[in-house]
Amino acid sequence: MISYNPVTDELLGRLAAVVGEAAVSTAEAERQARAKDMSHHAAHLSEAVVWPQTAEQVAAILRLAHEAGVPVTPWGAGSSLEGNPIPLHGGLLLAMERMDRVVAVHPADFQVTVQPGLGYKDLNLRLAPDGLFFAPDPGANASIGGMLANNAAGSRTVKYGATKDNVLAMQVALADGRLIRVGSRSVKQSAGYDLLHLFVGSEGTLGVITEATLKLVPRPAVMSAVVATFPAVAAAIEAVVAIRGTGLDVAALEFVGAETAAVATREAGVDWGERPTVLMEIHAAHSASAELDLALVQQICRELGATGFRATMDPTERQALWHVRHHLFEMLLRAFPGTHWIVLDIAVPISSYPELVAAAESALAAEAMFGSLIGHAGDGNLHVAVAYSDDDGLRRAERINEAVVSQAIALGGTSTGEHGVGIGKRQFMVAEHATAVDVMREIKQTLDPRGILNPGKVLP
Amino acid sequence: MISYNPVTDELLGRLAAVVGEAAVSTAEAERQARAKDMSHHAAHLSEAVVWPQTAEQVAAILRLAHEAGVPVTPWGAGSSLEGNPIPLHGGLLLAMERMDRVVAVHPADFQVTVQPGLGYKDLNLRLAPDGLFFAPDPGANASIGGMLANNAAGSRTVKYGATKDNVLAMQVALADGRLIRVGSRSVKQSAGYDLLHLFVGSEGTLGVITEATLKLVPRPAVMSAVVATFPAVAAAIEAVVAIRGTGLDVAALEFVGAETAAVATREAGVDWGERPTVLMEIHAAHSASAELDLALVQQICRELGATGFRATMDPTERQALWHVRHHLFEMLLRAFPGTHWIVLDIAVPISSYPELVAAAESALAAEAMFGSLIGHAGDGNLHVAVAYSDDDGLRRAERINEAVVSQAIALGGTSTGEHGVGIGKRQFMVAEHATAVDVMREIKQTLDPRGILNPGKVLP
Repeated sequence: MISYNPVTDELLGRLAAVVGEAAVSTAEAERQARAKDMSHHAAHLSEAVVWPQTAEQVAAILRLAHEAGVPVTPWGAGSSLEGNPIPLHGGLLLAMERMDRVVAVHPADFQVTVQPGLGYKDLNLRLAPDGLFFAPDPGANASIGGMLANNAAGSRTVKYGATKDNVLAMQVALADGRLIRVGSRSVKQSAGYDLLHLFVGSEGTLGVITEATLKLVPRPAVMSAVVATFPAVAAAIEAVVAIRGTGLDVAALEFVGAETAAVATREAGVDWGERPTVLMEIHAAHSASAELDLALVQQICRELGATGFRATMDPTERQALWHVRHHLFEMLLRAFPGTHWIVLDIAVPISSYPELVAAAESALAAEAMFGSLIGHAGDGNLHVAVAYSDDDGLRRAERINEAVVSQAIALGGTSTGEHGVGIGKRQFMVAEHATAVDVMREIKQTLDPRGILNPGKVLP
Repeated sequence: MISYNPVTDELLGRLAAVVGEAAVSTAEAERQARAKDMSHHAAHLSEAVVWPQTAEQVAAILRLAHEAGVPVTPWGAGSSLEGNPIPLHGGLLLAMERMDRVVAVHPADFQVTVQPGLGYKDLNLRLAPDGLFFAPDPGANASIGGMLANNAAGSRTVKYGATKDNVLAMQVALADGRLIRVGSRSVKQSAGYDLLHLFVGSEGTLGVITEATLKLVPRPAVMSAVVATFPAVAAAIEAVVAIRGTGLDVAALEFVGAETAAVATREAGVDWGERPTVLMEIHAAHSASAELDLALVQQICRELGATGFRATMDPTERQALWHVRHHLFEMLLRAFPGTHWIVLDIAVPISSYPELVAAAESALAAEAMFGSLIGHAGDGNLHVAVAYSDDDGLRRAERINEAVVSQAIALGGTSTGEHGVGIGKRQFMVAEHATAVDVMREIKQTLDPRGILNPGKVLP
């Protein structure tokens, strides 16, 4: 067990010499504002908040913390869902928000270089005039650094990949204060060990990302949307598999469980009824080809017994549909006032999706709890938002989490598709990775021998 | 400097106890057959060849070699181009060819699990009845294990990604004989450090891949092909960028330099003339949409001054075109009888491609050497096949390599896009990665402290 030292006045003085007096604070309000992300995990206070403005400052802060044996927890936007940036062991909270510059746009290379504190929605607003966008869309206005650290994903992963698939190069500050560059602006790279992907998804436990070059995608000329409802989950997923099997490169293939569809029908006036629902988005270079795509999708859905089908190429209608999808959670909050929520995040090979859904439904039933099933079915990722209102409810929700995660792992899947391990999934790491966890520990020990980086996360 | 021990009779006896007498050989013919890949690097003899048949045998062999301090060099198909599997320090040659089984096909998951000795072309023949294929296509009949170890790519990377983008999970034997599983059959995964991509591209220096689950792609309903010739490289690449900018997900965007186009025109009777030529392949789910794609591509090429343009949806004509592309090197061999070749492999951000081509042409001119420029322009990857006939020619070719690699790195690119570091690119690792090479060394030291795995490769 590593033991940590407290943040001393001497350390605070040294930090102030690095970042300036105004960029170090021990004020309770600042620490409280960064004590808890959007997860169900308990808040913890850091001892001080530090706001670096440059990569060199990040490296200098880490060097000081490393020498002092003080924990450092990086903080992006605080929108994570697994306690990933909660400073469990106190120490320094490294607030990345002032490192939010677009460093360079390379439109002809379909690339942008940014600082990690920038929100991806802000980035996409900046890129719109160039007709480009950064594809991963986890929701909220997650910071790029947080997305990289958690390998966040979202609805469009089925076509464009997760964050890890959309980054080419990074600058990373190591625990001992070294500053390195990993990856390359070349989209093809075979030159040595893939350190880039070692740091992506490591949740700030191996290094702190100080700059990243991201892949961009041309904004599609035509976007169409589809809603189809099915008599059963199995038919809905069969349709998802069949559509992927055509080679149509669908940009989103989202699943909404029957109960949640019913909430949307009631709250938003959609006509999904109380049936398993699939939402899709299809991107195309010209509208005539989008029409062909939609006809093919319709045929498949009809053949697999869709009870409802609606396709649209009208932007307003499409946006309205995705507005409903993106606000399902708010509708749930209205439908179940005063409740708290745990959001489960598991993923399996797509053919096991119906079995995963069934496991979630039966785990909910066993605990007599309400859970909303919403998932990125195109890549086998399921979320279950479980409502609870007291400590007993929380315990039951955690039992549901345990049952569903165990089933996901048994089906060849993972304990977390896009939220990361954070605090809540550490207990499943050995079940999922067996002795590979030892190798993860060896790498952690090599890169962060004093264990100062985001302690209490990822590794069990 | 690590020193190695020779392969003793005692070790051979222990190996025979693991794999059987018939699967260990010190016969010169067997060692000669695996002393050199398809690169220009010199042959080296191993001391013994071992043919494992199971992952457990691989692990046991590594444990014995680790204890004995004997080098182990994995060998796939021997089709690599940078000396990657040449047993520079002797020791054991781990011939993976008997581990060539398809372990499981998961058609509804678009996945297959294979042993590493299987050739990717053999795999694709096996998958054809399922309407699926493994997309990376490096040429020859590279083994899956070799493709993973070198992160091989090919013509279709621009749409489907390199090998690293098409693998989900692997079993890996570590230097000390541990056998671990990395990754997940879930296409989305955020559970802990990305060990999968640490081993992919590590060229057998961190572990030996004993099994892999690969992503598959539905065989497209319609494939069309395009050839366009341009008055200058810049216009050709402008067209490539513009086509990518439409959002059209072109499956191949290949560049052929003017001199090589002239060879193809002469040898294969195509009408490319002596002009920079772009070859494309477009995959579509229906022919009507392919026609729209082709019209759009034609318009762009015309606007950018294409002097020739031909598009086809006829399978025979398309195959004939790609046959020419895939046999360009053989035509060069015929055109320059009795010469040897070095194949350069560099990649840059796509906007710098014309500059890279110019650098290659001027480096060739400076040494008065012939070089054939053929590249995967869609992802900024350029090959230059340099002809030489004697030692002086080899030295001049190596100077050209050095000049072109330096320029690629200066342009924000990489010393190797798809051939790996092997022997020949080690000298550029520090120029490309600076102090990140130290981190690579630390990881190598952690995972292979006795340095038995493929010594003399990747790290300078």
